Amino acid sequence: MNFDSELDGKVKEIETILKAFLPKEDGWAKTVMEAMNYSVNVGGKRLRPMLMAETYRLFGGTDRIIEPFMAAIEMIHTYSLVHDDLPAMDNDEYRRGRQTTWVVYGDAMAILAGDGLLNYAFETALKSFEMTDSDCDRMKIARALSILAKKAGIYGMIGGQTADIEAESLGEKVTQEHLLFIHEHKTAALIQAAMMVGAVLAGASDAQTAFVEKAAYEIGIAFQIQDDILDVTSSLETLGKPVGSDAKNQKTTYITLKGIEEAAQEQKEMSDHAIELLKSLEKEGFRNEFLMELIRSLITRIR
Amino acid sequence: MNFDSELDGKVKEIETILKAFLPKEDGWAKTVMEAMNYSVNVGGKRLRPMLMAETYRLFGGTDRIIEPFMAAIEMIHTYSLVHDDLPAMDNDEYRRGRQTTWVVYGDAMAILAGDGLLNYAFETALKSFEMTDSDCDRMKIARALSILAKKAGIYGMIGGQTADIEAESLGEKVTQEHLLFIHEHKTAALIQAAMMVGAVLAGASDAQTAFVEKAAYEIGIAFQIQDDILDVTSSLETLGKPVGSDAKNQKTTYITLKGIEEAAQEQKEMSDHAIELLKSLEKEGFRNEFLMELIRSLITRIR
Repeated sequence: MNFDSELDGKVKEIETILKAFLPKEDGWAKTVMEAMNYSVNVGGKRLRPMLMAETYRLFGGTDRIIEPFMAAIEMIHTYSLVHDDLPAMDNDEYRRGRQTTWVVYGDAMAILAGDGLLNYAFETALKSFEMTDSDCDRMKIARALSILAKKAGIYGMIGGQTADIEAESLGEKVTQEHLLFIHEHKTAALIQAAMMVGAVLAGASDAQTAFVEKAAYEIGIAFQIQDDILDVTSSLETLGKPVGSDAKNQKTTYITLKGIEEAAQEQKEMSDHAIELLKSLEKEGFRNEFLMELIRSLITRIR
Repeated sequence: MNFDSELDGKVKEIETILKAFLPKEDGWAKTVMEAMNYSVNVGGKRLRPMLMAETYRLFGGTDRIIEPFMAAIEMIHTYSLVHDDLPAMDNDEYRRGRQTTWVVYGDAMAILAGDGLLNYAFETALKSFEMTDSDCDRMKIARALSILAKKAGIYGMIGGQTADIEAESLGEKVTQEHLLFIHEHKTAALIQAAMMVGAVLAGASDAQTAFVEKAAYEIGIAFQIQDDILDVTSSLETLGKPVGSDAKNQKTTYITLKGIEEAAQEQKEMSDHAIELLKSLEKEGFRNEFLMELIRSLITRIR
C-alpha cells in the first residue's frame, strides 16, 4: 500500500474514533454541543491524534487506551482555533473554506464551545481510567494527563498564544528569540504532547520520552515554518483559507526574519534531524516506517 | 471560637493554599499569568474550596491531597466568571467592586486568562497524583477528577451557561423547568463537584457520595435563589456589584416566577433539607458542625 492511501485510511480511522467521543446533541445545552461538533467536524489533517497513535505504535502500544487521548488532543487543538478565530482575537471568518464557529453561532456560543471542548478534552481523556484495572496503566495515564495538561496550558500552547498577542503590538521589533518562543509553545508544544502521550502510554522510559520530546520540538517548529511559507506561496483555493494574511497583518515570521530560502533550508534540516533522532530508536527495536514517512510529508505538503 | 472567626480563619487558610498553586508571573507569557492571578485574587467567599475541605473532613479526610483540588475548583469557578463578564457575554465591568479582567487586560487576554485558568485547574488537580504512592489513592484521585470534569463541563456548568444564554432571547417565556436546569447546572453543579470530590477523596462509599450529591444540589439551588433575592433587596455598597441587574435585563428568575416570599420560603426549606440529609450521616459517625453552620449561613448572608 502506498503512503497516500495508507494515510487516507488512518485519517478515516481517526474520524471514527473522534465521532465516538464527541457529545450527542441533546437537551437544554444542545446548542453548545452543536457548536463543538461543528468546530471539530470542519476537518483537517488530524495530525496530532495521528502522531500520537503512530508514536504509540512505535513503542509497541496496541491497546485502545490511547483512543480517548487521541480524541482529547484534537478537541484541545480545535478549541484553540475556535477561540483564536474570535473577533476579539484574530477576527477570522473562514477556516478550511467554512465559516468559523463564531460566525455561525455567535461570539458568546463560540466562547462556550471553546470552553466546552477544552473541558471535554479532559473529561474524555479521563475515560481511559475506566478502560483498565491495572495500577501500572493508571500510573501511565496519570503521567500522560499531566503532560497533556502542561503542554496545552500556560507553560505550553496558551503561553505561546499570549506571547503571540504581545508580539502583535511590537510589529517589526519582534526578536528571533521571541518568535521561537511563540513557535515552540503555540505550535510545537501540542505536537510534543501528542507524541509524548503516545510514548508514555506505550510504556516508553523517561529517557525515551525525553528523546521524543526533542524530536517533536523540531517537527513542530518545521511544521510552523512550513505554514508561514505556505502563507506566502499558496493560494486561497489550495489552502482553504486566505493567504498573505501574515504580510497584511505585518506579522513577523520566520520568513520576514530570514527570507524564504533560508527558512525553507532550516525547516528541511529540522525535519531531517527529527527523523534521524527517531530512526536511531531502531537500534533498540522500535520502528515505524509510516511515522517517518508522515514526518517527511509534513514539510512537502502543499496544504 | 464563634462561627465568624472560625470562618475567617478558614478563608485565610484557603487563600494560602490558593497562592501556593497560582503561577509565578514570569517569562514571555507573563501577562496571561498576571491576568489569571488578578482574576483569582479579586477574592470572594471561597465557598467551593471550603465546602470541599469541610466535606473531606466530614468523612474523616486529613491528608494534603485535597489541596490541589481546592485550588482547582476555585480556578474553574474564576474562569467561568472571567468569560461570563466578557463584552460578548454579560458585558460586566465590575465584580466585587473591582474592574473585571477584560476591562484591565483587554478582551483577548481575558479569553486567554479564562482558558489558562480552566487548563491550569486540571494541571493543578493532577498534581495530587505526585503526592501519593498508593494505588488506592490513585483510584480515588481518578474518580475525583472525573467528577470535577463532568460537573464543570457541558453536562454541568457549561451546559447551564448555554441554557442561560438561550434563555435571554426567550425573555418572559422561560419556563420553570428551563430555569431549574440553568440553576442546577450553572450553579449547583460546581457545588456538587466541590462536596463530591471532598467525599470521594476521603474514601466515602458510592452511596454516601450520591447522598452528598443530592444535598449539594439543594444547597446550590438555595444559594442561587439567595443570589436572586439579594439582586432585588441589596445595594451596590453591600453587594460590591450593581443590583437590580436582573430586572434591568428582564431576566426570568425564581423571584419573577414565584414572588419573593415564596422564593425565600422554598430556599429555606431546601437549605434545611440539605442540612437534615447531612445530619443523618451522624448515625454513621460522620459529623462536622462547622459545615452545618456554613450551610445555614449561606441563606442568611447579606452579601
